[in-house]
Amino acid sequence: MNPEQIIEALASLVAADRLVTDPDVMAGYLHDEAEWAEYEPAAAVVRPRTTEDVAAVVRWCFANRVAVVPRGAGTGLSGGANALAGCIVLAFDAMNSVLEINTDERLAVVQPGVVNDDLRAAVAVDGLWYPPDPASAPWSTIGGNVATNAGGVCCVKYGVTGDYVLGLEVVTGTGEIVRLGRRTAKGVAGYDLRGLMIGSEGTLGVITEVTVSLRPARAAERTIAGYFDSVVDAGLAVSLVSASGVIPSALELIDRHCLKAVDDWKNMGLSVDANVVLLGRCDTPGQAGDVEAATIERCFTEGGATWAAVSTDQEEADALFAARRLAYPALERLGPVLTEDVCVPKALVPEMLARIEAAAVRHDTLIANIAHAGDGNLHPLLITPVGDTAARHRAQSAFEEIIADAIALGGTVTGEHGIGLLKRDGLRAELQPAVLDMHSAIKTALDPAGILNPGKVFSAATVAATLQAEPHIVEQ
Amino acid sequence: MNPEQIIEALASLVAADRLVTDPDVMAGYLHDEAEWAEYEPAAAVVRPRTTEDVAAVVRWCFANRVAVVPRGAGTGLSGGANALAGCIVLAFDAMNSVLEINTDERLAVVQPGVVNDDLRAAVAVDGLWYPPDPASAPWSTIGGNVATNAGGVCCVKYGVTGDYVLGLEVVTGTGEIVRLGRRTAKGVAGYDLRGLMIGSEGTLGVITEVTVSLRPARAAERTIAGYFDSVVDAGLAVSLVSASGVIPSALELIDRHCLKAVDDWKNMGLSVDANVVLLGRCDTPGQAGDVEAATIERCFTEGGATWAAVSTDQEEADALFAARRLAYPALERLGPVLTEDVCVPKALVPEMLARIEAAAVRHDTLIANIAHAGDGNLHPLLITPVGDTAARHRAQSAFEEIIADAIALGGTVTGEHGIGLLKRDGLRAELQPAVLDMHSAIKTALDPAGILNPGKVFSAATVAATLQAEPHIVEQ
Repeated sequence: MNPEQIIEALASLVAADRLVTDPDVMAGYLHDEAEWAEYEPAAAVVRPRTTEDVAAVVRWCFANRVAVVPRGAGTGLSGGANALAGCIVLAFDAMNSVLEINTDERLAVVQPGVVNDDLRAAVAVDGLWYPPDPASAPWSTIGGNVATNAGGVCCVKYGVTGDYVLGLEVVTGTGEIVRLGRRTAKGVAGYDLRGLMIGSEGTLGVITEVTVSLRPARAAERTIAGYFDSVVDAGLAVSLVSASGVIPSALELIDRHCLKAVDDWKNMGLSVDANVVLLGRCDTPGQAGDVEAATIERCFTEGGATWAAVSTDQEEADALFAARRLAYPALERLGPVLTEDVCVPKALVPEMLARIEAAAVRHDTLIANIAHAGDGNLHPLLITPVGDTAARHRAQSAFEEIIADAIALGGTVTGEHGIGLLKRDGLRAELQPAVLDMHSAIKTALDPAGILNPGKVFSAATVAATLQAEPHIVEQ
Repeated sequence: MNPEQIIEALASLVAADRLVTDPDVMAGYLHDEAEWAEYEPAAAVVRPRTTEDVAAVVRWCFANRVAVVPRGAGTGLSGGANALAGCIVLAFDAMNSVLEINTDERLAVVQPGVVNDDLRAAVAVDGLWYPPDPASAPWSTIGGNVATNAGGVCCVKYGVTGDYVLGLEVVTGTGEIVRLGRRTAKGVAGYDLRGLMIGSEGTLGVITEVTVSLRPARAAERTIAGYFDSVVDAGLAVSLVSASGVIPSALELIDRHCLKAVDDWKNMGLSVDANVVLLGRCDTPGQAGDVEAATIERCFTEGGATWAAVSTDQEEADALFAARRLAYPALERLGPVLTEDVCVPKALVPEMLARIEAAAVRHDTLIANIAHAGDGNLHPLLITPVGDTAARHRAQSAFEEIIADAIALGGTVTGEHGIGLLKRDGLRAELQPAVLDMHSAIKTALDPAGILNPGKVFSAATVAATLQAEPHIVEQ
């Protein structure tokens, strides 16, 4: 089916103002922020207002074997939202209402296009807290967060997005509207299809509503900063914190490259006296929190910090965390950034950081490091000069070796960004063939026509034998 | 295939001391603790020592279309482990080793037959804590806990079994050994097949190893007790606690029937001055914990407690929690107990308790109540005199109306016990037909021969069209 036919069909399914066909406008909907991930022109973009809009489109796609690619804000870093030639992109920016905030049950019901920070602000009015806080929180949406099971800074103590998803409304691969999960605190009726959808990157269903659990507002956080000469020293300090029994509410690592890039951009007056900065936080109230902060400070010192202190200046502490959050866009100003996302056992953080440094030297590639260090989730950021193909090839080699090292150390190729397009080889390296077969069987069971974001997570060829009509699927 | 042929085949697959065929010994492996759930004679019981034993049996069952029913300690309350005529029961009591306790990563690796309390004790030696604590903790096993996604007393603050499962080794429906999940703190590589297995009651795979995450040992708990004239008053107090912003580490309800049954049995000197007792606990350290305990006490009083206090006597507090744990076996001494497990939105606990009382009156049935009140997870216990068929029919009617009421209030038919055999009608009432279809599609995808605990969770007829050979499956 050609794009004209697809557009004509969509015009009969959704209101005219829901349909985007202008190539210039569509251009903003065709890819996420993953460098080097391929994308192709979509046939059309639909910006649904209702679940019924979504179901109508998916039913038509099912009947006509046309691929559908759901997207939130496009802040993903693995190509999971990238368009395929002739596909329909479902963009959820117009389904952005908070439908309910329930203080008795401590839950909220939201449309998928609600921005993460907006949800946090909305529930804070009622003394509640939505913890999941990916660095993209000012822009990324709850739907995208759920589709990728996004992590963030708070995970070390409070878990990931999926830990806060009680229920989902989903449009299935055959265009049916289903409710998965629940509104109650507990429930074990049937298989955890809610959990199966979380992190499935739009390949098993299209999320149209999310019920999230909330926590009571928490006590103010204390911040502990430590300066280190090397990433390896900082990694040792992280291991000591983990072994101390204190669970910090954040434990982040930022290296000098990141701090400098942020400072050059935002002129925040950040110290770059250190090669590596560790930022710890704890939110246990009262004197117990003081004890925890002192313990973290001691771990930093014992790990080899050249300077460590519990911050008494909230503004300075906030600036350091803001720098952490701005590291990625700041580095992007220097050139294309390829973002790694490996996660290793916590005790092996020093070893993994040493291997990343070695890969940087071996492949003559600038690698900056930010990390959710307390989780062992590292984000080496591989920076290449614009247009330097040789540098890009060197960086690609480093990228692949870092993935192999993470697997060798008992880790995973992706801690929180997802597989998308960029980590498909990594997934094959990480999972047993029999486990990949289970993936294919489930994909086929829930998306029998292979129309849901085909080619993401794993190669389309293995799962979409039934997808016979145009458009073809990207094969990388 | 007849039992003799099955036994002959098994003798060639596993060591002789792994095979149980004596009917008297087998009798102890044929059912769980669910009253009124049917079970039938198995062909044989296999007590594997290794994952390879399990895989050998399942491969043979796959090739020969023989049903396999995995079981832990048989403490389940829904019939999930009940044998089917001519099946092979896989009993995990001999795979009961703690394989690893890792303090750096705060995780443990265990065989499925490890008893819940034994794991808790083993990790406590290293200053660690395994939170999930079903009332069956002294007897039930981690494998069974995972297969049912067991809850417990701690859930209100610390979540359920599934929240502590990092990784699983599973034998699939085709007899392959796969590893699902991970050892790292985070990871989003592929679908959450670990989560899909949790709570699937042995219908999607046989669990042969579990990697659990642990927490640091926590501070000592404070106990707050409150006496109430009615379950409705107590329900109001629970709602007030929930709205207060305090997250208690336990919030349990016990009624007079339970307290009296325990006291009659164990002579613990428990007060039965109250019709209903609420037991709250909080484990926040230091002064903040004192504030929390005082808040819970105030909520009890405002809810209408005739007496409420923060316990200063640890022995008394422990006795009250012991009574909570002993309620079920104590009541069983009075006659067959049919256990409900509905879970409703927290604010509707008073309404649900009132409906349960009304059902007791309407159907002239003694209904005792224990509840994880802070989660809205209620366990009405329907007690019938031995051999009184009319009473049993009345209780069955009350059971069904309670399920219908829970669904009508936006709740679920099972908060933590699972579907098994007893709640299959309830599952069909709770889930949309399209969601049941998704269940069937996944069951067929992962268990193509329909050999894994067939007929549990949902009726076998809908999923086991491929299971053509003997033995037939129980149809209730």
